[in-house]
Amino acid sequence: MDEKTGTNEGYVLTPWVASGNIDYDDLIVRFGTSRIDQGLLNRIEDLTGELHFMLRREIFYSHRDFNWILDEYEKGNHFAMYTGRGPSGHTHVGHLMPWIFAKWLQDKFDVELYFQLTDDEKYLFNFDMDQETTHSYALENALDVIALGFDPKKTHIMIDTDYIKTLYPIALRVAKRLNFSNVKAVFGFDNSVNIGSIFYTSIQSAPCFVPTELKGRDVPVVIPCGIDQDPHFRLTRDVASKIGYCKPALLHNKLAPSLDGTGKMSASIPKTTIFTTDEPSDVKSKLSDAFTGGCISAKEQREKGGNPDICAIQNYRYYLFEEDDEVVADISMRCRQGEILCGECKSLLIHKVNTFLERHKKGREKAKDIIDGLLLID
Amino acid sequence: MDEKTGTNEGYVLTPWVASGNIDYDDLIVRFGTSRIDQGLLNRIEDLTGELHFMLRREIFYSHRDFNWILDEYEKGNHFAMYTGRGPSGHTHVGHLMPWIFAKWLQDKFDVELYFQLTDDEKYLFNFDMDQETTHSYALENALDVIALGFDPKKTHIMIDTDYIKTLYPIALRVAKRLNFSNVKAVFGFDNSVNIGSIFYTSIQSAPCFVPTELKGRDVPVVIPCGIDQDPHFRLTRDVASKIGYCKPALLHNKLAPSLDGTGKMSASIPKTTIFTTDEPSDVKSKLSDAFTGGCISAKEQREKGGNPDICAIQNYRYYLFEEDDEVVADISMRCRQGEILCGECKSLLIHKVNTFLERHKKGREKAKDIIDGLLLID
Repeated sequence: MDEKTGTNEGYVLTPWVASGNIDYDDLIVRFGTSRIDQGLLNRIEDLTGELHFMLRREIFYSHRDFNWILDEYEKGNHFAMYTGRGPSGHTHVGHLMPWIFAKWLQDKFDVELYFQLTDDEKYLFNFDMDQETTHSYALENALDVIALGFDPKKTHIMIDTDYIKTLYPIALRVAKRLNFSNVKAVFGFDNSVNIGSIFYTSIQSAPCFVPTELKGRDVPVVIPCGIDQDPHFRLTRDVASKIGYCKPALLHNKLAPSLDGTGKMSASIPKTTIFTTDEPSDVKSKLSDAFTGGCISAKEQREKGGNPDICAIQNYRYYLFEEDDEVVADISMRCRQGEILCGECKSLLIHKVNTFLERHKKGREKAKDIIDGLLLID
Repeated sequence: MDEKTGTNEGYVLTPWVASGNIDYDDLIVRFGTSRIDQGLLNRIEDLTGELHFMLRREIFYSHRDFNWILDEYEKGNHFAMYTGRGPSGHTHVGHLMPWIFAKWLQDKFDVELYFQLTDDEKYLFNFDMDQETTHSYALENALDVIALGFDPKKTHIMIDTDYIKTLYPIALRVAKRLNFSNVKAVFGFDNSVNIGSIFYTSIQSAPCFVPTELKGRDVPVVIPCGIDQDPHFRLTRDVASKIGYCKPALLHNKLAPSLDGTGKMSASIPKTTIFTTDEPSDVKSKLSDAFTGGCISAKEQREKGGNPDICAIQNYRYYLFEEDDEVVADISMRCRQGEILCGECKSLLIHKVNTFLERHKKGREKAKDIIDGLLLID
């Protein structure tokens, strides 16, 4: 059992808290994960014919056992994917990151996706949230998943309280092998944590083993997710073999940055976060107010150039809204040289984001027609 | 929060452990319950026309808020009953005690029974037990419940893993209001307890609120159960009003004694325990070997008399197999006077128990035909 939590002097990162200046290299050491190195990248590229921009840019930068997933794949033992979301509000574009990547994996490897919406978690961990609210956000968030264009025949969405009859017996197997010391060490819990939250990690573990249960054979599972979720799956991996399952593999992404240039995009600070339900005017207003690497005046910026490295606008492009590395590089270069000012740069992104959201919203509308077929309900 | 566990220097009593010489009067003080006093007995007798022998004999001897249950009953607000069993093996006759009493309450007050079979609990708390085993014992034990003759129209049996979709959201409400300190104080847990066991008490709480959820109105609930189960419901009562439900009331029974004359009847010591599935020859053999208050020889016993107060055979009569107080008193008197010897006394009980079990087994066979209609399955 690795007893290191995602907390050091400079930052705190748990599945529920992200604050400070997250050191992603440090997390690889603290969590004991593996870097996605050139060898693994080459292997993925050989199999898929290309590298997703999130791999090229080291946004997905860490993993556990993904080489084993590819070993099995090459033997003809196709894996399943599992990812999810805690439905505490509307989906923001940061949430889409691992989903967009999962969509690419589905397209390239032709595999099934199991998507968990943890309405129970959000109820348990948010004192003021009721069950009706978290369940209704779960349905709402499911539309965002479907809107990304996953293959409906190969995509299964489970809302915990609707699928609990399947999840609970699996969760019990996990829970029986984890004690309070284990979860305390990994999540930093103390004795004031509610007993639902203590148990909860076993519910998040359960979908790792759902494909195996449903198919009646050992299905390798890979979880593309934010590295903040790794502690859950470290516990899962510790118990997997004890309860007769394969360890799930992981692909970890860095968290999407916020528009104010500090920390992780957070639904609790709506002004610095773009939701998939935002109107074009919201997007314009939020991106116009974003923190940039620009100078105090247009004149100064033309002379000295801006700093795209600290710019939230350029970060948005880099993490999500511009797949083309050359376009990103070109804008950075023109920024540094003072050739493009923040207003113009923001306008380009506003247009890009609103174009994306316009299409995404149409996808959400269409999703309403097919969602029933994708939900796993007991 | 009453933080007293059922442990003092002379005994340990928790929902999972009973050892030493249990001091039932001490438990009333430690747990903070109320004695079933003459006033309450009179009130019950006024309403029912008689007192069940378990009330007359102070086998049911403690309660919480049963006066309130009767207040509501007199106002026309009928209560529901909830009791249950942890299906870790075959039912023994000691388990039947609160069920037989519940049957009497159902007959007298014409109320519904909700019976919980906690297959999840027994899986979590017994390292070597698997889920198939606890679930199959749950179905097996359900036959014993039904065989007692409960009104099938007013009796609902839930096996936790089969009814979890209903139980889980209610359990989450309970779990959100209990922290590790709370369950540690009441059950004496330490950090090595598995996280399923920590969460479990909220699953045992859930049926207290199921009648209210199913009927869509506040249904008062009384739980006839062994006093060893009180810690669970003390927690339930602490949180009930915070989550919008009435506190469940309780009626506590003393635990059935074992045939060796020490401690509680326990399924883990089959030789000193009579199971409902035992053959007549098993019953004969076990009761013949039981500890009695007899003397070393027939001659000595005829002269000095026996001691029925310490006799397991007489205890079996007293707790379960002889409703008639006069018969019990008569046998005790004849024992003390050396008029009846242990052999004859055992034969009488063997006949009584085997007659009961013969009828009970027929009831179990008939139960197989109707069980499906009584099970609550999501």
